[in-house]
Amino acid sequence: MDKKYVIGVDIGGQTSKIGVVDARGNVLTQSVIRTDTHDDVKLYVKDLGAAIRLLASQVDGGIEAIRGVGIGAPNGNYYRGTIEFAPNLKWKGIVPLAELVSKEIGLPVKLTNDANAAAVGEMTYGAARGMKHFIMITLGTGVGSGIVVGGYVLYGHDGFAGELGHTIQVRNNGRLCGCGRTGCLEAYASAVGVARTAREILETTDRPTILRDIPRDSITSKDVAEAAAKGDQVSIDIFNFTGRMLGAALADFVAFSSPEAIILFGGLTKAGDLLKKPVVEAMNENLLAFWKGKIKVEFSELNESDAAILGASALAWEL
Amino acid sequence: MDKKYVIGVDIGGQTSKIGVVDARGNVLTQSVIRTDTHDDVKLYVKDLGAAIRLLASQVDGGIEAIRGVGIGAPNGNYYRGTIEFAPNLKWKGIVPLAELVSKEIGLPVKLTNDANAAAVGEMTYGAARGMKHFIMITLGTGVGSGIVVGGYVLYGHDGFAGELGHTIQVRNNGRLCGCGRTGCLEAYASAVGVARTAREILETTDRPTILRDIPRDSITSKDVAEAAAKGDQVSIDIFNFTGRMLGAALADFVAFSSPEAIILFGGLTKAGDLLKKPVVEAMNENLLAFWKGKIKVEFSELNESDAAILGASALAWEL
Repeated sequence: MDKKYVIGVDIGGQTSKIGVVDARGNVLTQSVIRTDTHDDVKLYVKDLGAAIRLLASQVDGGIEAIRGVGIGAPNGNYYRGTIEFAPNLKWKGIVPLAELVSKEIGLPVKLTNDANAAAVGEMTYGAARGMKHFIMITLGTGVGSGIVVGGYVLYGHDGFAGELGHTIQVRNNGRLCGCGRTGCLEAYASAVGVARTAREILETTDRPTILRDIPRDSITSKDVAEAAAKGDQVSIDIFNFTGRMLGAALADFVAFSSPEAIILFGGLTKAGDLLKKPVVEAMNENLLAFWKGKIKVEFSELNESDAAILGASALAWEL
Repeated sequence: MDKKYVIGVDIGGQTSKIGVVDARGNVLTQSVIRTDTHDDVKLYVKDLGAAIRLLASQVDGGIEAIRGVGIGAPNGNYYRGTIEFAPNLKWKGIVPLAELVSKEIGLPVKLTNDANAAAVGEMTYGAARGMKHFIMITLGTGVGSGIVVGGYVLYGHDGFAGELGHTIQVRNNGRLCGCGRTGCLEAYASAVGVARTAREILETTDRPTILRDIPRDSITSKDVAEAAAKGDQVSIDIFNFTGRMLGAALADFVAFSSPEAIILFGGLTKAGDLLKKPVVEAMNENLLAFWKGKIKVEFSELNESDAAILGASALAWEL
């Protein structure tokens, strides 16, 4: 029997998305289950198994046509197939999820964190096809990263390599980060970071901006992007600040792995050139001379609503 | 005929060291030729070929017993076997040195930069034996690095990965670096950086220190280490500052590749715990919680006078 499909599972704090994917990156069928309603991971695995069996029954060949399952999860460890101390999940400690799911459904399972899954997805179906060396940066609520070296995700000694959102960009008096330290890239170049930058400017200056029409504590990065698109100078400046912070950080990442390209993914990329232009400028200003102008910066080519499933599913082609 | 030996060549600005090495990392015989007396690289290659043939004739089996030649050179490119725009060599532009040497002596040749060669040497003969993921940091006149991922040196898309000495550690008002930018790790955590820190303290404070007995412009990192060993508090503080700057940088490097260990090599490591203690402290203070206390920091186990030859020679075992 030809194993022509894979299944991708993207586990988020509230919901888990599941899809059956073909070799071209088409999501043939998909569904969603709740993540946060199960304090006991075993009950979650039962639900997930049922959802996977149902989806598999809807495609040509059924479960026999499924090569395996790839899972993208917060704090996922590729080597061990575990989720370890994920702050936004209810399952505490170390959860051997890949093993539990594999036993439940009788298929092989690979698991990694969301950003690494996104990198594999981009390499398999997206902007990084054919690339052997690139860095994926996910700009969502937080900042994640997946580093590809020689065509393989860099997992490192313990499986947790690629925490570039937690490199320190502001050494002194940096913003408090969710990780408990200060000055992390994530505290600036994430959706939350953009909103914080907006609030800081509103609180510390008198500059006129249409952002003042929004209750200060409810301002989101989307509000800032929309205002910037309308020509609001403060909002444009916020994206300049964010982009320059990210671009300077990227220059250091290039000094590490000398990638062909850096792929940006996630909500903030909707700002388009408002973000990309200062990123590319600041990166090139900060690169060593022989890299200037040579490192591509691209946005993801994957449809955002499918991307998480695609990324996770791509892991299963290795099986 | 058993190819039981390799040859290592370490090219420096003034001299090139050449040695025949066995599989255990013993340098059986070695010699030195001048690098800087030849404006024409072809004449240098003639000299190098003669030196290699002479050394090979001194070991059991002669040239027939030599598997190949490894070369460590400034700005060496592993993929292309070239030296590219090396500021401290007389040969300008791109020099296809591996090809020239291979034609001259009729043996296969591999070439990389000095710090990558040091990493391969440490993995083959030294403190990183058996390790698959580690980072080598060379603390000499400058700061070099070799990053090993999955048992292989990370060369990146263009062969120039691993320029960690040129990650920016001080974003504003940083020291001018030899690369033309400001705030690079190399401007602080190198032998030159230690001497600069000393001069800055002497110029900007009245603190008593035996370093004031030395003409200010001739103070070296060795002077500072000797004074610190005698209990001179200013000199101890200089190593604390240097070590903390390096340790904070290492925490960011760990977030990239999650290595088992970081190996420090070069002149500054002679300061021993004066350097290592603040490095380890600052690294752990700056690491994400799950890495704290888990990343080894070790000094190189290779005899410094042999290390450059050993590192270069180790490349040739891959042939």
